[in-house]
Amino acid sequence: MSRIDFEPLGRRVACGDEATVFEAARDSGVPLASFCGGKGTCGKCKIRIISGEASPLSEREKGKLSSEEIEQGYRLACLTKAGADIKVEIPQESLVVSPQLQLAGKEKGVRIDPVVKAYEVAPSPPTLEGARSDEKALRDYLADEHGLIDLDIDISVQRQLPGILRESGWQSQIGVRGREIVMIANPGVSALGLAVDLGTTKIATYLADLATGRVLAARGMINSQIAYGEDVISRIYSAMENGEEPVRQAAIRDLDRMIDELCSEAGCSRENIVEAAVAGNTAMHHLFLGLPVKQLALAPYVPAVSGAIDVKARDLGISIAPGAYIYLLPNIAGFVGADHVAMLLATGIFATDKTVLGMDIGTNTEITLACGGELRSCSCASGPAFEGAHIKDGMRAAAGAIERIEIKDSSIKYKTINNEPPVGLCGSGVLDAIAELRKAEIIDERGRLREGGKEYILVPAEESGSVKDITLTEKDISEVLLAKAAIYAGMNILLSEAGIDWDAIDEVIIAGAFGNYMDLANALEIGLLPEIALERFSQVGNAAGMGARLCLISREQRALASETANRVKYYELANHPNYGRLFAQAIGFPAH
Amino acid sequence: MSRIDFEPLGRRVACGDEATVFEAARDSGVPLASFCGGKGTCGKCKIRIISGEASPLSEREKGKLSSEEIEQGYRLACLTKAGADIKVEIPQESLVVSPQLQLAGKEKGVRIDPVVKAYEVAPSPPTLEGARSDEKALRDYLADEHGLIDLDIDISVQRQLPGILRESGWQSQIGVRGREIVMIANPGVSALGLAVDLGTTKIATYLADLATGRVLAARGMINSQIAYGEDVISRIYSAMENGEEPVRQAAIRDLDRMIDELCSEAGCSRENIVEAAVAGNTAMHHLFLGLPVKQLALAPYVPAVSGAIDVKARDLGISIAPGAYIYLLPNIAGFVGADHVAMLLATGIFATDKTVLGMDIGTNTEITLACGGELRSCSCASGPAFEGAHIKDGMRAAAGAIERIEIKDSSIKYKTINNEPPVGLCGSGVLDAIAELRKAEIIDERGRLREGGKEYILVPAEESGSVKDITLTEKDISEVLLAKAAIYAGMNILLSEAGIDWDAIDEVIIAGAFGNYMDLANALEIGLLPEIALERFSQVGNAAGMGARLCLISREQRALASETANRVKYYELANHPNYGRLFAQAIGFPAH
Repeated sequence: MSRIDFEPLGRRVACGDEATVFEAARDSGVPLASFCGGKGTCGKCKIRIISGEASPLSEREKGKLSSEEIEQGYRLACLTKAGADIKVEIPQESLVVSPQLQLAGKEKGVRIDPVVKAYEVAPSPPTLEGARSDEKALRDYLADEHGLIDLDIDISVQRQLPGILRESGWQSQIGVRGREIVMIANPGVSALGLAVDLGTTKIATYLADLATGRVLAARGMINSQIAYGEDVISRIYSAMENGEEPVRQAAIRDLDRMIDELCSEAGCSRENIVEAAVAGNTAMHHLFLGLPVKQLALAPYVPAVSGAIDVKARDLGISIAPGAYIYLLPNIAGFVGADHVAMLLATGIFATDKTVLGMDIGTNTEITLACGGELRSCSCASGPAFEGAHIKDGMRAAAGAIERIEIKDSSIKYKTINNEPPVGLCGSGVLDAIAELRKAEIIDERGRLREGGKEYILVPAEESGSVKDITLTEKDISEVLLAKAAIYAGMNILLSEAGIDWDAIDEVIIAGAFGNYMDLANALEIGLLPEIALERFSQVGNAAGMGARLCLISREQRALASETANRVKYYELANHPNYGRLFAQAIGFPAH
Repeated sequence: MSRIDFEPLGRRVACGDEATVFEAARDSGVPLASFCGGKGTCGKCKIRIISGEASPLSEREKGKLSSEEIEQGYRLACLTKAGADIKVEIPQESLVVSPQLQLAGKEKGVRIDPVVKAYEVAPSPPTLEGARSDEKALRDYLADEHGLIDLDIDISVQRQLPGILRESGWQSQIGVRGREIVMIANPGVSALGLAVDLGTTKIATYLADLATGRVLAARGMINSQIAYGEDVISRIYSAMENGEEPVRQAAIRDLDRMIDELCSEAGCSRENIVEAAVAGNTAMHHLFLGLPVKQLALAPYVPAVSGAIDVKARDLGISIAPGAYIYLLPNIAGFVGADHVAMLLATGIFATDKTVLGMDIGTNTEITLACGGELRSCSCASGPAFEGAHIKDGMRAAAGAIERIEIKDSSIKYKTINNEPPVGLCGSGVLDAIAELRKAEIIDERGRLREGGKEYILVPAEESGSVKDITLTEKDISEVLLAKAAIYAGMNILLSEAGIDWDAIDEVIIAGAFGNYMDLANALEIGLLPEIALERFSQVGNAAGMGARLCLISREQRALASETANRVKYYELANHPNYGRLFAQAIGFPAH
């Protein structure tokens, strides 16, 4: 056992003799980047040895690091063991912190009608002549005053009942959910709810007052499950290999920490949270619940569960009000999950009578076409290019990431997140770089650099926040071409199934973080989006979080979520006769 | 930290420096007797130091031990600390083992209709064209083949669903309880149920096949909660002082051990147990559920909960089928609990049109009078004399306890449990001793020994299994007089409330272990029971356990249990204007 000091975090962690620095960081929650989950393939978990002696440099690291980096003491954390106590630096591009999180979402008015209703109760205390049990006294009161009979009472409420009734002088309040009493509290305590957008990369949480719907606090953080694989597929494989429980626990711990922060900001206690609503894609949903994920990774890629779920928070190890439930929105398919249902709800696509295309661009891009009152959806395996992964100098949308690029008069202007020195490109930066280089005719229609060479220098080493040039490679361009081809093919299949043309589209709604930050004109330039008038597009931000919030405060929205998930006709692209042809056609940029 | 070897058990346990030998025994499950729960007052936890040096003999021990005992190395475990490693002997009278347990109960035919119903399911597997979730596939099958819709599915079943469906080739069975799927299993696995009579002193368990009602195995053991107080009141105080959770855990561990034994005898797995039914008195019920007990000990002595309860086994820390529920029969009042409801059910008293008196004699004696279709009940604070406590040479019904005494031609004949050398008197032995001495006119009407002296030698030291005489003292007689007076007063109050006389009683049904073993004629001799014809009495054994079994296999019996608990009119004796007078009148034996 040795110890590792991680700088600039100032975190000291223990490291077993057989553990890699990456594993030590992961197990201690040190936010070290990785796309491959510690397999030594992505090269993202770079660290620099400041002092102490680590295991010798491996051949694989030599292939992943430049000679300059090696000279400066850079290593890959997943291929390095700490033989003795060492101190390492996590360079900015490897540090997963201060991410740019998308918490806001387009608001939509709904009637406040939460699933948990509060009732004042004032049963009369027992006497020797009328020695009713506390439970009987409560039931009698509820029947007489509120006409409520035959309710179930959660065991935790039964346990709290005698104490709270006596403490409060036989004047309390209860929370009723359907046919069950899930909460008892002193009078005057507000019943709160928690909405969660459980993303593969980010978790966004909102604390709301159930009686008013008002959001009291919001928090976002990187999903710690990233240490078990950056994208959905690698995370599923990691869960299959190492068991689902450690992966599940990582997200539960994140949520637990955020609940602490939300409560501290709102000045309330965990016990006041009597309901939660969670939206996530199918894999996140399954990992959160402890459902098996193996069948998601194997054809025909089916979810274990697609219907909406109500589960006691305690059964998931989440500590809020002891009788509280967590509601999970329904899934549509293995790769069109509850987050997409939440988006359809929040954007109103589920009920529109127009022809609307809705999409959330990510490693999997979920698309729904509303047309003639019918909903058709599919999932495109677009890869993580737009999340900054599989891109040579790609990175997540964190400080120092280039998020905007413009080429004017042959000179490159860029903007980084937090205006830090540039260390890499996040998704919107990759899109801009390609679109601008394409406009400048530096990239040809087939994605090759006209001037020869395999990469184009966007930021020279002397300007960058790291020790090397920031470049765009032909391989990067090719990743983006594959992504946009997959999305374009998916959109075309939905259109042809509906028997319509691009002209028929009234509106394109783009949800999600990348979709919100990307430059629309550039997306059209590279052919990621169809050539229709710019004003028909809208970028709605975190619609999944908004959908979770709607379901938190409205029973009707939950019913609509289930109805919508049932109505959607899902198209499996892997299986579609036209997919291959459409995909191949779309590999290339629109001609000028 | 030192270690203690307990003989003749051959158990070695660790003992903290500040812990007493009693605490070390209790915490390690060594079955050492105690009535006071380790307070140094009952003198029951005698041990003998075989080797090693313990803490010095205290003044209090000198008062509780004879000089002969002190000479032989006897100590009280609760007043002794192990300064170093020691070896001690637990003499037979202090050892709580091989208790005489009452597992059988009068059988009564009911239609088998358990709350969990098994259904065969064979949903069709998903394809790329029809990629339903497993949950949807199951729901579709249930709707089409069994007409079951909108069922809840326990989270544990959702977790098991993909694995079991694929393992079983899409041919499985599920267990449905009300509107919820609580179990999924491979076909052919029997669904089992567990019935529990959770007594203050003893726990009796039965494993039954839910489809046939057949009992596959039965087990009984002393309730380990005894280490926290022998009777209900001392146990409640112990829970109030030290917290309820350690007391609760003691019973949960017992149950866990018995489930192991039952499963091993029946050759099945815990996961096959899909339902349990539990009957206990109100305090045992509350401690089992983690409900607060404080209000049970304070006027007006109300239960936290009286209605029947369904709670997930996992919420109590009981590991059976992961989705299984535990059903608890309803309570009537703070001191007339679910075990009495179970008895009313098992004996048919709840539905009789005769005039029937039913009782379970114990520390609290619960009595119900059925008359004209009405049920009246009360609880008499009869004290633990008939359980062998508060009696100088009293003991539980374990090996070596005198259970029968007869005086013939001025000589005393006795019979001990297991025919071991006599070490003390259990309840039926105490009753016989007093009745026989009363018949021989050795005890007078007011309970005094005619020949003078404070005690009567039943077995001289040289015949006994311990080192001293086994005697009956005037104080013992007085304890029994108080007990029988309390019971008699309770019976009389119920009769007068119903406006009837003893002559009107068609039948007296006596349940419970002591009631089953006691000599009826002797009970009449001392006036414990009314002077009516012997053939009108019946002794039915463990009717509470029988009632729990009925509720395990029959939904109708559960409905009847709730209806019965609601119908019973409860009389609080502490509050009754005639109680004091009737009690005082009954202190004395019937004249000859």
